[in-house]
Amino acid sequence: MKLVVGVLKITAGGKRIAIIDNETASLLGVHSSDRIKLSYKGKEVIAIANVATDFPPEGVWLYSEIAEALEVKGGETVEVQLAAMPESLNYVRNKLRGERLHAPELSNIVKDVVEQHLSDIEISAFLTALKIYGLDMSETEALSRAIIETGKSLNFGKTPVLDKHSIGGIPGDKTSIVVVPIIAAAGFIIPKTSSRAITSPAGTADRVETLCPVNLTIDEIREVVRKTNGCLVWGGALELAPADDLFIRVEYPLGIDPLLLPSIMSKKKAIGATHLVVDIPTGSGAKIKSPTEAYTLASDFVHLGEHLGIKVQCALTLGDQPLGCCIGPALESQEALNTLIGKGPVDVYEKALSLAGMLLELVGEKDGRKKAEEIIRSGRAEGKLREIIAAQGGNPNVKPEEIPIGTKKAVVKATQKGRVSWINTEAIVRVARAAGTPKDKGAGIILKAKMGDAVAKDATLFEIYAERSSNLEEALELAEKLAPVVLSKKVGERMLIGQFPSKTESERSFMFER
Amino acid sequence: MKLVVGVLKITAGGKRIAIIDNETASLLGVHSSDRIKLSYKGKEVIAIANVATDFPPEGVWLYSEIAEALEVKGGETVEVQLAAMPESLNYVRNKLRGERLHAPELSNIVKDVVEQHLSDIEISAFLTALKIYGLDMSETEALSRAIIETGKSLNFGKTPVLDKHSIGGIPGDKTSIVVVPIIAAAGFIIPKTSSRAITSPAGTADRVETLCPVNLTIDEIREVVRKTNGCLVWGGALELAPADDLFIRVEYPLGIDPLLLPSIMSKKKAIGATHLVVDIPTGSGAKIKSPTEAYTLASDFVHLGEHLGIKVQCALTLGDQPLGCCIGPALESQEALNTLIGKGPVDVYEKALSLAGMLLELVGEKDGRKKAEEIIRSGRAEGKLREIIAAQGGNPNVKPEEIPIGTKKAVVKATQKGRVSWINTEAIVRVARAAGTPKDKGAGIILKAKMGDAVAKDATLFEIYAERSSNLEEALELAEKLAPVVLSKKVGERMLIGQFPSKTESERSFMFER
Repeated sequence: MKLVVGVLKITAGGKRIAIIDNETASLLGVHSSDRIKLSYKGKEVIAIANVATDFPPEGVWLYSEIAEALEVKGGETVEVQLAAMPESLNYVRNKLRGERLHAPELSNIVKDVVEQHLSDIEISAFLTALKIYGLDMSETEALSRAIIETGKSLNFGKTPVLDKHSIGGIPGDKTSIVVVPIIAAAGFIIPKTSSRAITSPAGTADRVETLCPVNLTIDEIREVVRKTNGCLVWGGALELAPADDLFIRVEYPLGIDPLLLPSIMSKKKAIGATHLVVDIPTGSGAKIKSPTEAYTLASDFVHLGEHLGIKVQCALTLGDQPLGCCIGPALESQEALNTLIGKGPVDVYEKALSLAGMLLELVGEKDGRKKAEEIIRSGRAEGKLREIIAAQGGNPNVKPEEIPIGTKKAVVKATQKGRVSWINTEAIVRVARAAGTPKDKGAGIILKAKMGDAVAKDATLFEIYAERSSNLEEALELAEKLAPVVLSKKVGERMLIGQFPSKTESERSFMFER
Repeated sequence: MKLVVGVLKITAGGKRIAIIDNETASLLGVHSSDRIKLSYKGKEVIAIANVATDFPPEGVWLYSEIAEALEVKGGETVEVQLAAMPESLNYVRNKLRGERLHAPELSNIVKDVVEQHLSDIEISAFLTALKIYGLDMSETEALSRAIIETGKSLNFGKTPVLDKHSIGGIPGDKTSIVVVPIIAAAGFIIPKTSSRAITSPAGTADRVETLCPVNLTIDEIREVVRKTNGCLVWGGALELAPADDLFIRVEYPLGIDPLLLPSIMSKKKAIGATHLVVDIPTGSGAKIKSPTEAYTLASDFVHLGEHLGIKVQCALTLGDQPLGCCIGPALESQEALNTLIGKGPVDVYEKALSLAGMLLELVGEKDGRKKAEEIIRSGRAEGKLREIIAAQGGNPNVKPEEIPIGTKKAVVKATQKGRVSWINTEAIVRVARAAGTPKDKGAGIILKAKMGDAVAKDATLFEIYAERSSNLEEALELAEKLAPVVLSKKVGERMLIGQFPSKTESERSFMFER
């Protein structure tokens, strides 16, 4: 059928969508979500049909991307017909029936996701089926390879290439900003890419951005690593794993994360990592709740690493409460810098040393933890972070207290004396986000008491910082409602931590960082 | 944040979508698929955000529906902010974790589907989870009630109201056109609504449309039923179950059908049915492959009926091959009319008598099958169908041979003599669709040999009809490749019916009619 092109000047993440009228669709035998083939002057493009009503029956409207691909500007007459179902959709349907998919089939699905031949409906069903049925190791490996194949990769021309990753889940985890300079100062390459916060108060990229630019090109990264051995950059714009970005967009509203392993490991492979330490925070406040769960995941990481040629060591770390005292991009940068200076909280210091030590031992060094400690104590790690800040375009002489934080401040006090028996990390995250994180970099929380600490009546439990009064009020109100820091007089005296049904709504939170 | 409205003159099935720029989204803290609240002159509307690039950062573009709801025409400045996640999305997430949902939660989901507060991604994940985990009876009942509540309903002012439904799955099943006039002639109300073909060569609405209009309003239906006791109309535009239409749109590309029971039963309840016979074609050529599967489904239908106040009887019918000889809207109308005249194939006649008999006995009549046979033999059923045709605006005097069929015709012949040992219904469907069905009403197939029939070499196995030469050629080519009618010399002589991997692609077909 001949239809006249209209162009919608919208670029929607590459979505290949063509809008046609109800009547036209019926004549073409097209249902919503069917594919149509558009042909113009020897070029052919497959688009997913959106069927609309009250629409010119002789027209087809195209999003910018597809108009570009077809080299039309609007007004041209193109040939439109029903296209066959893509092969990958058959594989998706097989997965919905619980079938095991093979490498070429998964590769085909990932390719069609990247080329926008599968619709949101189909990608959502695929991810939901993966979430429910789970993936076996061969599927996990095949998906990792398919994600790598459809993305770019980095090569630093020498090995080993070290890396550190946290699966995320506890607020305040600024360990990477401490580990990267230790490893780089020890003479090893560690090109750390990281993400921005999706559901947390701060991602490593958000934190580092308060020290220097993080939005570097691949060439700039190569130069920073050549100069300093390390970097701390945002991985999102590097197109290391475009498939993963598309999967995340669909997973996010669903609160599911079935591709955790392929997602993380494909990006590590793409930056050429040969040795990797994966941090798995474990505890009631973390994404992984129990040691059993953590060891299962750790074993999968190590085996997948073997298949992909990456030597992996996993660290199970305490995940019952936030790490350190500071939560929020700028506050966490201050705390990370203080840790390198020797003035940080003991848990941040300990965790960074443990992970850096494991990484050093993974590449054959002896007494890794001791070496890491020497590198911090000597000031070489601090110096190295300042080198990296300079190489990425920041101020290398910045003092922790010069990193700007929110000027609006509120204090939450203890209404009785007692000992901190529990910190609800989900509630801490919600309060920090209400205060404006991660968008407002100066927003956040400083915990003045952590688990086991004794507090007097009227002592400060935590401070809330915000850049805007309205956010401060909202965060304070939420803090009073959720009471994230729980006190008890004696151990065991207060056992109830929630009730159901409850008057205060208990959102099922989902921690999505990878 | 204040943004200037642009209106996209597109009505996309009520989708509440607002498009905002990447940068604007980031400032609002909005990710793709998040909800945003738009406020203008005291009115508030929740929309799902689509994040686009290369888009005016101070603008928000709205699809027609949402612009209407907000009473804006373009150019107005509206307040836009991040809206909370709808409660129903929490329930969807619970279902993804395998939790059992309760009636108020399912009702909330269905309501939000109808009000377009859930995105395609979320609806797809919900349906996929239902497909994989299955639904228990309390969930099935709750979903049925929720679908009924969000739709319109009919009331004919008297009971009993009889109905007949086939879960579909074998091509050529024109039984409804024979059963409805029998029941109506027996003096019972039978307001039959039916669907158009989605994946089959013809739905009952497509068949009846070759005899008379089927796109009636609720008032017109009431009038036709008042005059004739029955009707044969398209249910799609009556808004009996708008939720179901939205679910079907998402299920269709996925080839899944988790809401079969709620979908069918909610529509029956909406038209006020009190007594229902459900036909479950069972066999290798049907949707339901084995008697065990069929009895399980039948038991669910009966129990759900008890909960909803509908007396249900299920019929397990032979589903190994197409019903009758004719496939395609016009060809099937001819065959149905011939059956009422007494000149139809024995299987169509037998099946119609069985189902009509069951329905009559369900409302307390004795010897239902015998009564049904008398009604056909006396010509009263034929007369009743002609009354219904007249009442719906068709020609009551139409002769079977006057119903126009495709003028392009091809013949597929036996290359050897033998006995028909298998008819591949999926292949028959594909050939009929290639010939132009259901869009071209005159297209289709006439089978000249059915299972067990002896055929001579060069005898005709089947004829293909089309309205266009290109379709005829395509169908003939496919027929030669798929060879849907399989001959063997003796029983058991030809046991192989497929191979894997095979040279001719074997699409996993999916029969989607409800």
